[in-house]
Amino acid sequence: MQIALVVYDRFTALDVVGPYEFLSRLPDAETVFVAKAAGPVRSDNGAFTLIADKALAEVSSPDIVVVSGGPGQSALMEDEQLLGWLRAVDATSTWTTSVCSGSLLLAAAGLLRGRRATSHWLALDQLKPFGAEPTGERVVLDGKYVTAAGVSSGIDMALTLFGQIAGEDRAQAVQLATEYDPQPPYDAGSPQKAPAHIVDLLRAHSRFILT
Amino acid sequence: MQIALVVYDRFTALDVVGPYEFLSRLPDAETVFVAKAAGPVRSDNGAFTLIADKALAEVSSPDIVVVSGGPGQSALMEDEQLLGWLRAVDATSTWTTSVCSGSLLLAAAGLLRGRRATSHWLALDQLKPFGAEPTGERVVLDGKYVTAAGVSSGIDMALTLFGQIAGEDRAQAVQLATEYDPQPPYDAGSPQKAPAHIVDLLRAHSRFILT
Repeated sequence: MQIALVVYDRFTALDVVGPYEFLSRLPDAETVFVAKAAGPVRSDNGAFTLIADKALAEVSSPDIVVVSGGPGQSALMEDEQLLGWLRAVDATSTWTTSVCSGSLLLAAAGLLRGRRATSHWLALDQLKPFGAEPTGERVVLDGKYVTAAGVSSGIDMALTLFGQIAGEDRAQAVQLATEYDPQPPYDAGSPQKAPAHIVDLLRAHSRFILT
Repeated sequence: MQIALVVYDRFTALDVVGPYEFLSRLPDAETVFVAKAAGPVRSDNGAFTLIADKALAEVSSPDIVVVSGGPGQSALMEDEQLLGWLRAVDATSTWTTSVCSGSLLLAAAGLLRGRRATSHWLALDQLKPFGAEPTGERVVLDGKYVTAAGVSSGIDMALTLFGQIAGEDRAQAVQLATEYDPQPPYDAGSPQKAPAHIVDLLRAHSRFILT
């Protein structure tokens, strides 16, 4: 089972490394990081670089596609090389997925039309012009399309997907192996839960977070 | 504020990328991935490669040290290049931290003697011979030493540390920016919570998980 993790200049590291850590433990998983060109790809803040194993053109029929989010997404919304590739691999994928603003790329490729989907809470409204129906849920499954909310939510998406593919027992074994028993010291991880002044602060500075 | 993230051959990706995603958002943060040699470093399953920006010898006084865990840890338990470096940077660090089996490297360097500490639940007992006092907690602070349990727990550690350094408001802003509102689909992330047969299964195969 080939799992293609799509990255690009100024992607957000945890968006893909969270899902990678879980999905790479699927039976017979072959994970491959893909980008426009194989080689080093720099994350949003420039301080993290991973190696894309293959160029998009070298990966033609992954079983699972995971599209990263990150500030670099906005520069790709009309990029036919990427959007065309997404449409092409989606034609044969078993699961087409995204984390954070990665769903905007799926939407721009026309893949979320008429579908329920999610994204980073600051980007949700941007799904609408592409005919997707945004929801505030953390992980949204609509057919074979699975979208996750911001950054860290890719972990919950991956574990959900793991269970769908390999069953609850194996999914729980991976949850235990990675000791995924989250205990955040604060309860401010969604706009519904965070103090209002912090929500306002992030809304005012959203351009620093998403673009 | 310089944050050194220590990786090595066969580290576990999420162990460091979790903390990186949060700590890199500290005010004036300079994150640097360090390894024995600068350049590509391959993770445990061989499918993920990040670039270490600097060699250990090039980083002499980080403010925060984060030591990754992963199967590659066991080959380093008598590695004086790494252990000597850990002792040297610990002399001036503000925080010395680890995720998963990374705490065994701190312990082997003699830094956790007489201190409360944690590790991956399958590795906890290995802390004792080094004079550390293992606890089953997810994040353990003892003075400037902060250790986290398995893999995903580095996120909780990093957010805890973020709050200690930059205050609760900023920590909550980062929690909201990364939408860290975990909603795992199962509740099997610790040996106390997982079904007994799954705990037994992982104990029986622990050598595949940790070494």
